[in-house]
Amino acid sequence: MTKIFFLVLLLVSAVFAAADITRVNTITTDAAIEAAEAVLKAARKANHTVAVAVIDRNGKYRLLITDDNAGPQTEESAKRKAFTAVSFGQPTSNLTAAAGGDGVTIHDIPNTLFLAGGVPITYRGAPIGAIGVGGAPSGDMDEAYARAGLATIHL
Amino acid sequence: MTKIFFLVLLLVSAVFAAADITRVNTITTDAAIEAAEAVLKAARKANHTVAVAVIDRNGKYRLLITDDNAGPQTEESAKRKAFTAVSFGQPTSNLTAAAGGDGVTIHDIPNTLFLAGGVPITYRGAPIGAIGVGGAPSGDMDEAYARAGLATIHL
Amino acid sequence: MTKIFFLVLLLVSAVFAAADITRVNTITTDAAIEAAEAVLKAARKANHTVAVAVIDRNGKYRLLITDDNAGPQTEESAKRKAFTAVSFGQPTSNLTAAAGGDGVTIHDIPNTLFLAGGVPITYRGAPIGAIGVGGAPSGDMDEAYARAGLATIHL
Amino acid sequence: MTKIFFLVLLLVSAVFAAADITRVNTITTDAAIEAAEAVLKAARKANHTVAVAVIDRNGKYRLLITDDNAGPQTEESAKRKAFTAVSFGQPTSNLTAAAGGDGVTIHDIPNTLFLAGGVPITYRGAPIGAIGVGGAPSGDMDEAYARAGLATIHL
Amino acid sequence: MTKIFFLVLLLVSAVFAAADITRVNTITTDAAIEAAEAVLKAARKANHTVAVAVIDRNGKYRLLITDDNAGPQTEESAKRKAFTAVSFGQPTSNLTAAAGGDGVTIHDIPNTLFLAGGVPITYRGAPIGAIGVGGAPSGDMDEAYARAGLATIHL
Amino acid sequence: MTKIFFLVLLLVSAVFAAADITRVNTITTDAAIEAAEAVLKAARKANHTVAVAVIDRNGKYRLLITDDNAGPQTEESAKRKAFTAVSFGQPTSNLTAAAGGDGVTIHDIPNTLFLAGGVPITYRGAPIGAIGVGGAPSGDMDEAYARAGLATIHL
Amino acid sequence: MTKIFFLVLLLVSAVFAAADITRVNTITTDAAIEAAEAVLKAARKANHTVAVAVIDRNGKYRLLITDDNAGPQTEESAKRKAFTAVSFGQPTSNLTAAAGGDGVTIHDIPNTLFLAGGVPITYRGAPIGAIGVGGAPSGDMDEAYARAGLATIHL
Amino acid sequence: MTKIFFLVLLLVSAVFAAADITRVNTITTDAAIEAAEAVLKAARKANHTVAVAVIDRNGKYRLLITDDNAGPQTEESAKRKAFTAVSFGQPTSNLTAAAGGDGVTIHDIPNTLFLAGGVPITYRGAPIGAIGVGGAPSGDMDEAYARAGLATIHL
Repeated sequence: MTKIFFLVLLLVSAVFAAADITRVNTITTDAAIEAAEAVLKAARKANHTVAVAVIDRNGKYRLLITDDNAGPQTEESAKRKAFTAVSFGQPTSNLTAAAGGDGVTIHDIPNTLFLAGGVPITYRGAPIGAIGVGGAPSGDMDEAYARAGLATIHL
Repeated sequence: MTKIFFLVLLLVSAVFAAADITRVNTITTDAAIEAAEAVLKAARKANHTVAVAVIDRNGKYRLLITDDNAGPQTEESAKRKAFTAVSFGQPTSNLTAAAGGDGVTIHDIPNTLFLAGGVPITYRGAPIGAIGVGGAPSGDMDEAYARAGLATIHL
Repeated sequence: MTKIFFLVLLLVSAVFAAADITRVNTITTDAAIEAAEAVLKAARKANHTVAVAVIDRNGKYRLLITDDNAGPQTEESAKRKAFTAVSFGQPTSNLTAAAGGDGVTIHDIPNTLFLAGGVPITYRGAPIGAIGVGGAPSGDMDEAYARAGLATIHL
Repeated sequence: MTKIFFLVLLLVSAVFAAADITRVNTITTDAAIEAAEAVLKAARKANHTVAVAVIDRNGKYRLLITDDNAGPQTEESAKRKAFTAVSFGQPTSNLTAAAGGDGVTIHDIPNTLFLAGGVPITYRGAPIGAIGVGGAPSGDMDEAYARAGLATIHL
Repeated sequence: MTKIFFLVLLLVSAVFAAADITRVNTITTDAAIEAAEAVLKAARKANHTVAVAVIDRNGKYRLLITDDNAGPQTEESAKRKAFTAVSFGQPTSNLTAAAGGDGVTIHDIPNTLFLAGGVPITYRGAPIGAIGVGGAPSGDMDEAYARAGLATIHL
Repeated sequence: MTKIFFLVLLLVSAVFAAADITRVNTITTDAAIEAAEAVLKAARKANHTVAVAVIDRNGKYRLLITDDNAGPQTEESAKRKAFTAVSFGQPTSNLTAAAGGDGVTIHDIPNTLFLAGGVPITYRGAPIGAIGVGGAPSGDMDEAYARAGLATIHL
Repeated sequence: MTKIFFLVLLLVSAVFAAADITRVNTITTDAAIEAAEAVLKAARKANHTVAVAVIDRNGKYRLLITDDNAGPQTEESAKRKAFTAVSFGQPTSNLTAAAGGDGVTIHDIPNTLFLAGGVPITYRGAPIGAIGVGGAPSGDMDEAYARAGLATIHL
Repeated sequence: MTKIFFLVLLLVSAVFAAADITRVNTITTDAAIEAAEAVLKAARKANHTVAVAVIDRNGKYRLLITDDNAGPQTEESAKRKAFTAVSFGQPTSNLTAAAGGDGVTIHDIPNTLFLAGGVPITYRGAPIGAIGVGGAPSGDMDEAYARAGLATIHL
């Protein structure tokens, strides 16, 4: 109880003392590993070898794993799907239609990939990271595996 | 008065003395900061977190600011929109139709991005720089914020 | 008062509800701009044209400004000095000796620059960002200007 | 028993049937995860936040994890140490002296980093991968954590 | 006979002793050279100058040869076609329709090229490498030459 | 006369003595400069500021000039148009239709740009280099200027 | 006379009307070509084949020429020497001692090269560009050729 | 006899007709393959697995082969050694002392590597290409294998 009280004080003082500081949320490493293992487990059940990337709000790797014998394109695919999901705060599958329209679209933004398989990690209404999966025979499967990972994260 | 006269002489002599020198105009750092602050203010009023880039005629950064919690895609988006606007001397929104036409278009020129949000800084009829904004829910909003920045520059 | 109480509850609940979330601190955009303006003011007083970079703990730009007529090497210098300071949690001038020793040293780590001019932004004992300055005739001056920026940040 | 016999037949036939095929060994994904978790556990015990990379004989990522709040330089450091260890088949700490000698040395080979913290995964006398760790206050500690990971791999 | 028996024992023991090791198959260097020579021979018969790339499952070069006077675009074309073929386990010509459809497709995956001329090297049902050819007047010819190379590999 | 005879002998002996040597033709530096000056002169007559690139069969720069105040996109545009023209042995304007067709086309080959403005330098039926121009209001004008340069080369 | 008077007025009005505009000086394209030709002439007299780069204050190419048969390292050498000279406002030969000292020096700043052969173009006390030369047997010769180019520029 | 006479005429006419054309010599593809096979044979005799690169005067790949199980650092090492040898027209082992001296040296030129193992292919006194080898336990061995390749080229 005392510990909680202390913590509260600490947090309150932080809010008042440091007007020039702002906080960015991200998932913990342990949560990223647990999510990645769930992704791999789901993919392997279907005999698929995938790469899984977990990135933070800055687009930086928290985790990257390429499963045994995954194709050489899966690493970058997984990363870009996650980058796209955290950038737009939506699953890449929600964005595919907009990106694939005629003319100039968000498709042209560098480092994005609008194939299904990227899902945002949303906390208090804001995207704080994303999971991206590549390597299954279809993007829908990639997304299903990404969601299996997402389901393990306690928000 | 004497000072102005001296200045005039200085400028005139420059014109005659150095035939091998040419001048490139660019906005001042202070103007770039003032413009960026106007961009951020306009975007925040709508609760949007954006990145703003100000570049010169060479495509080089004068200023880059990413607002608190802006997405990882906004930095490069803002830069490329500004690059595109200064390259073609027009707002990117004017160029979207041409870039998005069928077949080979200016869309293929490297480092460009033809989404709305880039506006040129025009001085004596020539583009001397540009402001690019990325991160709002639509390109039209990005452009509105970029124009709020442009409005602060005295040309 | 009610507002504070509510805030406290909010923070406490966050701590308990989301074991998979961790927080990364960074300075606000406004603080970054204020710091940069202090850097430029200090440098201009000595008639020096510099570039100033403010980066976060991920090594990502919060702000980059190159003053009028700053050399082409200053942008990357400022960024790398800031990167180095936030990586090691010390001013680059403290690291110069270690980096410059015989044989293999931290000097070899990619994207670092151990010239003076980078200072960490430290909050609760941890580096949460850094200011890097390049373009003055000596690294000591670059560092003095960076410190002028740091002095404006309320931690 | 039958299963083993079948396996033996399978392997023998492979050897005879495909003279144009050669095999490259690598550790499994599961082994890479287990090793990485051991690295993180050892580092956290000392309150250090590190990045850990596991790569294969081709220098390609099997796994990359950056622990909560690890510095921005740790990802590339971990990767390059692992790259160096698998390239030369020795811990990077064994190579530091040779790399740091006067004049032209192996230090100049691209993508290498000869700071301690990279250890090869050796199987039947050949390096088949490596673990690289970056972010501890000294390279010796990075190596100790890398070895904690190596100890979990059954060869 | 003794030798075979010994080999069998060796392989069996490997299977049991090293649960953390997995094997990746690739073609031998000699097979890659023989295949490349067959590619060149077929192309020259038609007076075409091509580049030929042989890559492994990791997308890494086993071999690259640019024939006398081949165009500057052929090296990267050959590599990317091979990368694409080994990534998807099919000739690039099989993938052209899917990649060229409306909207977002596999076409957007980085480092791919879906023009005809890339053929996978398939062993026991899995792509273990690929041959890519560029520089002939049409992709169909490039593919024919790639297949001439593939025909020399004993699987 | 003696000199010619000597030269003939020299060339003949070369042909016989060095079966392992082959020759690549390229235009001389002086020819490249003369061509570039003709490009600039033609462009300036119409008050256009362009960049002009002359490259060899390897896609390497022989010459690059960006005229006063040319846009930041012109350097890379000029280079890529020249790269494309020497790769395919035709003016880029001839290739625009093929590149801009539906689905997968030569448009996807890296480092190409199929806008008008690139013309090959053809010698004895083979492309030995190219001139690329960028920066005029239309590709047709870019091509006209490139052709003005080509006209000065004696083949 | 009237023309001069008009010009004076124009310049004066510019100074008063546009406080947010600043001017960057650079040499003209024609001056760059003339300088480059002088560099080549001087080098050829000694039978040396060099590359020559002329860059502006932003480090951007105004001109690049590689003479017939110049080595593949000369292009980047010439560019980096020029980059270094314009960054520091001195010939690279003046900087060699400082860059080559023990420990951390300006040598570590990205994109620099402190071998002799780069000379700044100085106008009114400020570096507005530079000429860089690479490919002669010694840096001193490279510098002599660069100076031959510099001598043709009227400042 | 008639054929030779015709050839002579052809060559002579070329010399007179095309003053704007110059010739660059390079080794043939077949010579490159033969040389590479000799390199591999020599290395394998000592049980070493190496990468071998053959490049032309432009620094562009004619051939790259990485032997079975060669380390991930060998490809770039082989290429850079060859690049260095063709740039300076000498074996890299001749250049090691100069490159490894105190202060600023040729060591700083981009894309070079001054470890032994690169040998130029010299024709009529000029470097027209180079062979680079990497992966043996010492540079001297790499050079011996490179020389075994060089010995097969008829100049």
